[in-house]
Amino acid sequence: MIPGYEPPQLLKQRLFYQGRKLNFEVSTMRLPNQAEGDWECIRHPGGALAVPVTKEGKFVLVRQYRFTVAGRLLEFPAGTVEQQEAPEETIKREIEEEAGYRAHQWRTITKFALAPGYSDEYIYAFLAQDLEQLETPPAHEDDEDIEIVLMSAQELEEAIRAGEPIDAKSICSFFLARPLLELKG
Amino acid sequence: MIPGYEPPQLLKQRLFYQGRKLNFEVSTMRLPNQAEGDWECIRHPGGALAVPVTKEGKFVLVRQYRFTVAGRLLEFPAGTVEQQEAPEETIKREIEEEAGYRAHQWRTITKFALAPGYSDEYIYAFLAQDLEQLETPPAHEDDEDIEIVLMSAQELEEAIRAGEPIDAKSICSFFLARPLLELKG
Repeated sequence: MIPGYEPPQLLKQRLFYQGRKLNFEVSTMRLPNQAEGDWECIRHPGGALAVPVTKEGKFVLVRQYRFTVAGRLLEFPAGTVEQQEAPEETIKREIEEEAGYRAHQWRTITKFALAPGYSDEYIYAFLAQDLEQLETPPAHEDDEDIEIVLMSAQELEEAIRAGEPIDAKSICSFFLARPLLELKG
Repeated sequence: MIPGYEPPQLLKQRLFYQGRKLNFEVSTMRLPNQAEGDWECIRHPGGALAVPVTKEGKFVLVRQYRFTVAGRLLEFPAGTVEQQEAPEETIKREIEEEAGYRAHQWRTITKFALAPGYSDEYIYAFLAQDLEQLETPPAHEDDEDIEIVLMSAQELEEAIRAGEPIDAKSICSFFLARPLLELKG
């Protein structure tokens, strides 16, 4: 900690939007140097993500349309943590719903702040192994049009470096998961 | 692409908030299966990030308070791309303002979507080398209370794995930058 550091003082908080999964609010704050300003924040319950790896060492990803960036992105299966839910529960549900796999072996990778400039979301990342492909792929949620993609570590790293559209939480989780696999065997 | 895939149809767009650096809007859309719903989006001009590395192989990071997560995070220097600005210009300014370094050698790492669930922000990441420490550290912007931290690649990786508070864009950029350094010698 910086000696003498004091966090900003909250003067006012306005809720601009309340959604199904997130809220948007703006806080007016006074800084230690007495300057005042507005800061925006998405209030989000957190996201849970799985890095699913098959016995053959293939990473299971989903390619889905994201209207925010008006295109399709490669991502690991993930979902929003529901009220009263632990991230472990969220991701066990999401990996089945999104990717059509059940995992029998789970390991915590880490958690990290996703976009702290304007969001309080943390991503809870898990390594999912001992995979069982579901016989009946589950019906996808209305807003998800998803293609399943299997890639080796090398293929995925090359795709990331070549600029294949992919998102930050998936890149982080891939690089953090890979050494756990190498150590294992 | 999934054969026959069609993106959702935009029915209505509402701007809830207009800020200095970002807007927040909600889009009502109709999906190919005819279901309708609301989707939230932070409209952001993009972020530029530097991975500054000293001659001795130390990574230069900043530790700063983020009110969104009510704590201090370790991050690489970064800033919001201004209107009419290229990300390369943004980051040359920000690395001086935030970290107090000027870099004489720049290399593009990659770009990636930061939080495509609710934001259109892309991070443009650059490797910054041949660093010159500014004699007079610049005055930080009002809203930034920043500590400069130098770490070796090994120290930084250990910190990330040990759960040191750090954000997604910095983790991604670290892992993507490191092999570029190793290849260089």
